[in-house]
Amino acid sequence: MTKIISPARQNTEKNQMDYREYFIVPTNKQKELLKKTVELAMKFYDGSLRDNKFLIYKPPKYFFKKLDRTIPKNPIDVGKSLKLLKEIGKYSISQFDKTYLSFPDSGNSLPGMMGSIFAKFINQNLSAFDRSAPIATVIEIQLIEWLRELIGYTSKELKDIETLSEVGGMCVTGGHMANHIGMMAALNNKFPEIGEKGLSNLNFSPVILLSKKISHYSFYEAAHHLGIGKENVIDVPTTSHFTTDYIELKKILDSLPKNKVPFMIVGVAGNTKTSSLDDLNKLADLCKKYNLWFHVDACHGGSLLFSGQMKKKFLNGIERADSVSIDPHKGLFLPYPSSYILFKKRDTLTIFSKHPEETKDKNIWELCLITPFYGSRGFESLSLWMLISVMGTKGIGEVVEYRSIIARYAERLIDNSGLFVKLNDMDFYRMAFVFCPEKFHNYLIKYGSKLDQKQKESITDLINRYGCEVNQKLYRAGEVCLDKYSLYDVGNKLNLNIEEKFLVIAITAGNPLYTKASMKTSLNKLFKEAEKMIPKFEKEFILIVKEKHSIAEKLCDIGGPAGW
Amino acid sequence: MTKIISPARQNTEKNQMDYREYFIVPTNKQKELLKKTVELAMKFYDGSLRDNKFLIYKPPKYFFKKLDRTIPKNPIDVGKSLKLLKEIGKYSISQFDKTYLSFPDSGNSLPGMMGSIFAKFINQNLSAFDRSAPIATVIEIQLIEWLRELIGYTSKELKDIETLSEVGGMCVTGGHMANHIGMMAALNNKFPEIGEKGLSNLNFSPVILLSKKISHYSFYEAAHHLGIGKENVIDVPTTSHFTTDYIELKKILDSLPKNKVPFMIVGVAGNTKTSSLDDLNKLADLCKKYNLWFHVDACHGGSLLFSGQMKKKFLNGIERADSVSIDPHKGLFLPYPSSYILFKKRDTLTIFSKHPEETKDKNIWELCLITPFYGSRGFESLSLWMLISVMGTKGIGEVVEYRSIIARYAERLIDNSGLFVKLNDMDFYRMAFVFCPEKFHNYLIKYGSKLDQKQKESITDLINRYGCEVNQKLYRAGEVCLDKYSLYDVGNKLNLNIEEKFLVIAITAGNPLYTKASMKTSLNKLFKEAEKMIPKFEKEFILIVKEKHSIAEKLCDIGGPAGW
Repeated sequence: MTKIISPARQNTEKNQMDYREYFIVPTNKQKELLKKTVELAMKFYDGSLRDNKFLIYKPPKYFFKKLDRTIPKNPIDVGKSLKLLKEIGKYSISQFDKTYLSFPDSGNSLPGMMGSIFAKFINQNLSAFDRSAPIATVIEIQLIEWLRELIGYTSKELKDIETLSEVGGMCVTGGHMANHIGMMAALNNKFPEIGEKGLSNLNFSPVILLSKKISHYSFYEAAHHLGIGKENVIDVPTTSHFTTDYIELKKILDSLPKNKVPFMIVGVAGNTKTSSLDDLNKLADLCKKYNLWFHVDACHGGSLLFSGQMKKKFLNGIERADSVSIDPHKGLFLPYPSSYILFKKRDTLTIFSKHPEETKDKNIWELCLITPFYGSRGFESLSLWMLISVMGTKGIGEVVEYRSIIARYAERLIDNSGLFVKLNDMDFYRMAFVFCPEKFHNYLIKYGSKLDQKQKESITDLINRYGCEVNQKLYRAGEVCLDKYSLYDVGNKLNLNIEEKFLVIAITAGNPLYTKASMKTSLNKLFKEAEKMIPKFEKEFILIVKEKHSIAEKLCDIGGPAGW
Repeated sequence: MTKIISPARQNTEKNQMDYREYFIVPTNKQKELLKKTVELAMKFYDGSLRDNKFLIYKPPKYFFKKLDRTIPKNPIDVGKSLKLLKEIGKYSISQFDKTYLSFPDSGNSLPGMMGSIFAKFINQNLSAFDRSAPIATVIEIQLIEWLRELIGYTSKELKDIETLSEVGGMCVTGGHMANHIGMMAALNNKFPEIGEKGLSNLNFSPVILLSKKISHYSFYEAAHHLGIGKENVIDVPTTSHFTTDYIELKKILDSLPKNKVPFMIVGVAGNTKTSSLDDLNKLADLCKKYNLWFHVDACHGGSLLFSGQMKKKFLNGIERADSVSIDPHKGLFLPYPSSYILFKKRDTLTIFSKHPEETKDKNIWELCLITPFYGSRGFESLSLWMLISVMGTKGIGEVVEYRSIIARYAERLIDNSGLFVKLNDMDFYRMAFVFCPEKFHNYLIKYGSKLDQKQKESITDLINRYGCEVNQKLYRAGEVCLDKYSLYDVGNKLNLNIEEKFLVIAITAGNPLYTKASMKTSLNKLFKEAEKMIPKFEKEFILIVKEKHSIAEKLCDIGGPAGW
């Protein structure tokens, strides 16, 4: 085999570097390196690479200093690759650790991972069939058909699909993009002329309607990026259960000015904050009545499609949506990226095709003709195809149901601890709560609404500070990873009727390897830290409420420092 | 360890399936399966899995029948995963095979692959720092800084980067998306009001200018998707060297109607068809004069950034671009996806941020604040970071230079075969040609322009048919994979002055493992098949040209069947 030696190097007789070793041939040494990469990854999995914590915490600046170096000039021995990876693994966070309760992105499906890394090696290009991805193209089409079947759309046997135009969905890189394409399809469906002439030709503003407090930010960004404009996203009130208020939605639709033309409603099937699910049938009814596109964001709720009973309970009506986003890298234990957008009307994507007539040609199977935003792209769909092929819908469904039992078990533990107030009821896997021990909560229930605005704000601040402190302490110690974010108390659970957001603590039971025992161990750490906070919290709490004398007296009535 | 057993299963005493084995713990059996996945991939690499051909060809319908089955219901043993992957590998195409000359997407960098699969295992989520991707966030920022340095933008040491707003680029999933975001940045930079109000508020049409014959289709799609409208992409004539005609471009700019407001010019640094490169300085001059955004699509040419001499020769002026797209999964041997968009002005992406003020907060490092279209996403940037870290800019540069020598060697072989007419000169790695043996070409040079339109079309059709036949024969036999697509003969190399596109054969020397010997072996197979075609081609050629009697006689003059 001829060596790869650059002309420059050919002139220098010594130290000729053979670059072949940097490219997979594969030699035995190369095979060994790749297997060692897997072994190293397994040390990340078993925890030994990261001191058996979900994370060896360091602040951002540590890495900015540690990694600082200008662009490397000279080649190093390829064997040293492992050392670099080891350092990266050491400081990476483990989303599949049993003490990681923040996001549901566990990514630890074995058949999913096998598909995912095999796809990297074979590096098929799903833009085209012949030169790029022969069998992979058909596997992706099959997977889309399976997802259609799960949603309840019309589904076909693979042999009955005759042209690309029948492929009613696509593989995307995230829920953000799935929602963007859903909105883009809705817009172009209602106003097909904008493809050629653009939006500047319209003498009205297309608008969409959704509940801002619970919808994903991708919809606002899409409104900006699609040229609709963020002010044309119309907010719909949220119910006290973190769902879209469809009664208010109807009122808004009835009172829109003439220069605002609605084209889409977003239904949320598992919002990012609390995983609460809209009543999809009610929203579908409204869409039908007003002739609007119905998009369902099931990025969180999508995993429930695999369980007959949970689908019926939580996703009833999803099959009436014009488009559905799902995100298996979130609720379905697959590594990133694994996301899909599906369309009720099979040929929806052909409106974006540069050659629409070719999508009806029986001999043309170039997926790039119906995948806006994507030309050359890898075989990311293999991981979900493998997951479904190996675990079956039954296996996945049972794991999803099991996980939901663990989630509700966690809810009971948190309830029973008497340390927190939950802002939402656990539906299938996500719950947000704040630090506010029972007696303080009891006090707020009785007198919270009577506090003045300043006191309400001070209590909110108090709750936020202490919750945040407990949360971050556990996080930085690498003991338990809980989520933290801001959330409106739409159910007024703290009886403060406040317009501010709370900084909540949250858990998500996404990892199928959680057990009741592991959940108890993790939450006990939380409870222990939280309990330590009570005396200081109490002092501050009393200081705030005693400003309003009569109530402070009542506070003493219900217990007082010593009795708590 | 408690078993994952669903409640439904708990009621059936027998066949309780323990789903733990489907999730990476990892057990020894699981480690073994993952290593076997690597071994199987290595059989794809060494060719044994695919009968030592770049592809075991089957037509699309074969797979539609072979794969046909409804969605799998029951779980199977996880060990059977390998069998599924084996079947997929068997019928996949190898883009790194030495006989694969179609696209440059070889994806065979060893450190790149190690980074790529390690990233899958550790599954960091580059949307956020704390809960999702601590060290990975900083590595991605460092990589973006390195790419800035290569382009010639201002670059900083990592420790001097103080806030997110200074991160002047982002990791994307493909060149298509990179170009889309480049155009979106240009649009919002010129018309910032559209973020809130949308495009329907404008009383003019924003337009972009580019050379349609050589630009990537992503720009038209972006014009549609961004709400600009496809009719607002203004075509600029192409030179005979497949580059943008900047003299004509200036004329167009000077004559645009008032309701068409230009905001961007696209410079192509390596077009998809012939990898020809625009004179970037000339285009940058025009952009400066007319105050337009200059976007450079360097998806193909980007690899040249690593070679000082090639950068100087081919990419001079790239540092003057406002935005640059690069696509390392194309020219830089990395598996999909690996693409980037870089901006001269560091804080360009903050205009798309949902919380622009937070991008200037020294404690906030959530990349999702400056990555439009992407929320949760994996650590895809690790592969390029590893490639650069291990090979160094010098190593990569030398490989890129070596590859270009092989490309020019291939050009000479094709030239010397006397069987083909090349439509472009090889610049650094891509060349398109048609089947038209020398004597026929000589004839066309002398008389081609004198043929009537019908004859010209018939000759074009003849050339297309025979070229296609040779190409597809080699492809289906799994012997040599050449590219095929349609292309205008802008240099009028066939002297037919025809407006139709030709169906060309093309080669791309993207794989660093090609050698002169391997290239010769592959091209000899092409030459052998092409030679077999000459007698039949000749008969048809004469039939066409003899319709115009006087020329047919001259054809006989210059050789005639026996003498050829």
